[in-house]
Amino acid sequence: MADTKKPGKSKPQKAAVVGGGVIGGGWVARLVQNGVDVCIFDPDPEAERKIAAVMENADRAIGKLTMAPLPVRGSMVFASSIADAVSDAELIIEAVPERLDVKQAVYAEIEAAAPRDALISSSTSGIMPTDLQDGMMHPGRLLVGHPFNPVYLLPLVELVGGKTTDPDTITRAAACFASIGMHPLPIRKEIEAFVADRFLEAVWREALWLVKDGIATTAEIDDAIRFGFGLRWAQMGLFETYRVAGGEAGMAHFIAQFGPCLKWPWTKLMDVPELTDDLVKTISDQSDAQSGIHSIRELERIRDTNLVAIMQALKANDWGAGKTLADWETALYDAVPARTETAIDQPLETMRQQVPSAWTDYNGHMNEARYLDCFSMATDAVMRWVGVDADYLAAGNSFFTVETHIRHLDEVVAGTQIFATSQILQGTGKKMQLFHHLYAVVPNGPDRLLATGEHMLIHVDMTTRSSCLPGDAVASRLIEITEAHARLPRPDGAGSAIG
Amino acid sequence: MADTKKPGKSKPQKAAVVGGGVIGGGWVARLVQNGVDVCIFDPDPEAERKIAAVMENADRAIGKLTMAPLPVRGSMVFASSIADAVSDAELIIEAVPERLDVKQAVYAEIEAAAPRDALISSSTSGIMPTDLQDGMMHPGRLLVGHPFNPVYLLPLVELVGGKTTDPDTITRAAACFASIGMHPLPIRKEIEAFVADRFLEAVWREALWLVKDGIATTAEIDDAIRFGFGLRWAQMGLFETYRVAGGEAGMAHFIAQFGPCLKWPWTKLMDVPELTDDLVKTISDQSDAQSGIHSIRELERIRDTNLVAIMQALKANDWGAGKTLADWETALYDAVPARTETAIDQPLETMRQQVPSAWTDYNGHMNEARYLDCFSMATDAVMRWVGVDADYLAAGNSFFTVETHIRHLDEVVAGTQIFATSQILQGTGKKMQLFHHLYAVVPNGPDRLLATGEHMLIHVDMTTRSSCLPGDAVASRLIEITEAHARLPRPDGAGSAIG
Repeated sequence: MADTKKPGKSKPQKAAVVGGGVIGGGWVARLVQNGVDVCIFDPDPEAERKIAAVMENADRAIGKLTMAPLPVRGSMVFASSIADAVSDAELIIEAVPERLDVKQAVYAEIEAAAPRDALISSSTSGIMPTDLQDGMMHPGRLLVGHPFNPVYLLPLVELVGGKTTDPDTITRAAACFASIGMHPLPIRKEIEAFVADRFLEAVWREALWLVKDGIATTAEIDDAIRFGFGLRWAQMGLFETYRVAGGEAGMAHFIAQFGPCLKWPWTKLMDVPELTDDLVKTISDQSDAQSGIHSIRELERIRDTNLVAIMQALKANDWGAGKTLADWETALYDAVPARTETAIDQPLETMRQQVPSAWTDYNGHMNEARYLDCFSMATDAVMRWVGVDADYLAAGNSFFTVETHIRHLDEVVAGTQIFATSQILQGTGKKMQLFHHLYAVVPNGPDRLLATGEHMLIHVDMTTRSSCLPGDAVASRLIEITEAHARLPRPDGAGSAIG
Repeated sequence: MADTKKPGKSKPQKAAVVGGGVIGGGWVARLVQNGVDVCIFDPDPEAERKIAAVMENADRAIGKLTMAPLPVRGSMVFASSIADAVSDAELIIEAVPERLDVKQAVYAEIEAAAPRDALISSSTSGIMPTDLQDGMMHPGRLLVGHPFNPVYLLPLVELVGGKTTDPDTITRAAACFASIGMHPLPIRKEIEAFVADRFLEAVWREALWLVKDGIATTAEIDDAIRFGFGLRWAQMGLFETYRVAGGEAGMAHFIAQFGPCLKWPWTKLMDVPELTDDLVKTISDQSDAQSGIHSIRELERIRDTNLVAIMQALKANDWGAGKTLADWETALYDAVPARTETAIDQPLETMRQQVPSAWTDYNGHMNEARYLDCFSMATDAVMRWVGVDADYLAAGNSFFTVETHIRHLDEVVAGTQIFATSQILQGTGKKMQLFHHLYAVVPNGPDRLLATGEHMLIHVDMTTRSSCLPGDAVASRLIEITEAHARLPRPDGAGSAIG
């Protein structure tokens, strides 16, 4: 199982998405951003507009989510029939309304036109795959691949097979979803609502009681979640959290201690409230009071910005959804052709990304310290270029920066595409002197120079933390580029001092 | 209600904590870190050791959580009786086991010795405050203040009054808990388990079924939470999330669409599984397989590091638990005496904090770019010192850095206490030239110089983004300090260039 959770070579070239609502649109966005060509079928005349809106949110989110080199974007085509949409798809995502008869009719149309070995993945939140398979010609390739909104950000996809699903179908689907940055979670046995939605349904039913009984409003219920256990559950689930709370005595002790609560009336879930018009109106009014100051589009963006920040925070700790993100980024970097094939008679392009909003400060522009983040990335790229890679570092050698000189020449705001080029001024012995230019991309205009960074680095032995000569391969590669760059004009500002 | 959620002047001077387990210890840590003197009573001879362990975790966490100036730490004293612990407390936290008779006996002892107007706050997860009040002399000052583990990090505290609780008790408690960085959530009516724990109990019961029925292991259940809806719930709760998912059609439409599920068997919660020895062993074994590679202490630290990162991520978006953190930090900064009272005949101390682990890179030390983060903070502090405060910025003026020269002189690892001192080299007209020294604190030794930063700043009109003279008050303050600093020796390295 473990190896199917890492992104790999299992990415499909072509996919079809049948049904273009919030979930279908989210699938389209994730696939297209990961370089998969997608053909969409949805009879709704508004589908194209709706998917464009999801896509716009998704592009905004991924721009903040990662600095890794995304593959060339997949194409997006709207088909006029299910047959047209699926005819050459390797992966077919069904995301139509939650009605068994509707879904079964869709599978009949898919099977009549799709390649025999295409995977058919239903996005249902709760219908059992065995029921979905009823009446299919080749039910072995159908599974439930249940994602979570927003699909272009949340990594989880529950994989559930029915009675006649081939085991290989689950394995292939897991590899396929991992290749587009997701965390596939195969479920051992099929039951209605699988795993995650059983919890969501339980919480939903409990919440309806609380509102109906006037214990808490929708806003208060949301606060009871997001200021407390919701923070815990973004990183550890139920059991690991309770294991920690139980302390050294362990899980069995914890259960023994809290077991008696099971007999107490701590939930109302033996019973379900009636969804009367009154209750629906109460919830709807409370929700307006709670969230009505933001449009749905604004709320989506707030949510996405928060999710991005949370996943990046977890990435720094190499944990949970952050680890999924890190694995996906590693695969993206690995997919980039080796830099050594690029010409070295020009300054090297050493970083390119959007300015994240988190990089701006109270002056409304990219904070001064982030200029050095950019130059630090550019320096790392030069190091990789001359052969200072993971193996070289693991062998106990690196370059350390000993001096930095930045000229902050212009401001830049969040969302701007920026890039750096780098020139090696000195690259003999233990020293490496670099000069970076940081530019902003100006649509339909010349690039705008934002800053220059001049940096002196010293090669060090990581064991003794003292300076030493680089390895032969790195030394000769460094000299090669330094000599090529010596033919370039000396950059304006090199060697200057403050004052 | 709104104003009671902001930290203010309502912080108690002295508190008592009765019961020193995980929850009691967490309260002690949060109170002491916020400058409250705490007296603890726990008959367990191990209590002192256990609370010291919680305290160690809490200190590690708060060092990562905030750079704001914490107040002078409160004292921590272990009392030999409840009477001794509570005799001069303004706030009394009860955190003894979940048995009504035990808690009532504790209240009798508290009431016999505590000041008449002390707040008595029970940490119970679910017992109704009216039941707790039964037999009390002055039940009006008892409430439930239900916190969440780890108490020193999670902001939520549910406030629940019983039949005889004074309304003023809830208001006072809300202000008091807000003053120590929490998010108080008053609950409208008392019910067993209040609000958050009703959800936790519902999810717990559902999870027991899933494990018992072999649908998912504890690890798989945790993954179903933390890779999906757990990420959502760290920032929006149930209703706001569904409001967004429902799209422009609104909440009533969403309910209409998903209402039918209430009739479907999507949860098992009409029934409760028997906690047989077999089921307890299954859970315990699965939990060992899932988390056993980490000790509880390690898991606690992983959890805390993740929670800190998530709250900081949300702080950058000024949302949810991040906004609570930001409000608390604002209060901490406001509590620091104005800097203008400090002597200016020496370099100014302009930043002091621990190196967060997120600041280290693949070389195992603080990344080069973080040196500029430190100097940027130091520059901001100098700006505040000369009067560039929130009002000055709001009026449309600021200083922008135009040039930076850093000498990276020594490495520093995560967890080290660092600080910067700053000297103004030039402060006339539109220019401000600064020279910072960054040091590491060496226990029992002289401070270690890590780097110097030289910076040229230009005063700008934020509307036109072009240079202009600073306001009179700032200009004269700047000249005053510049003249005082001109009598200091010129720093080594000032005005030097790379090469």
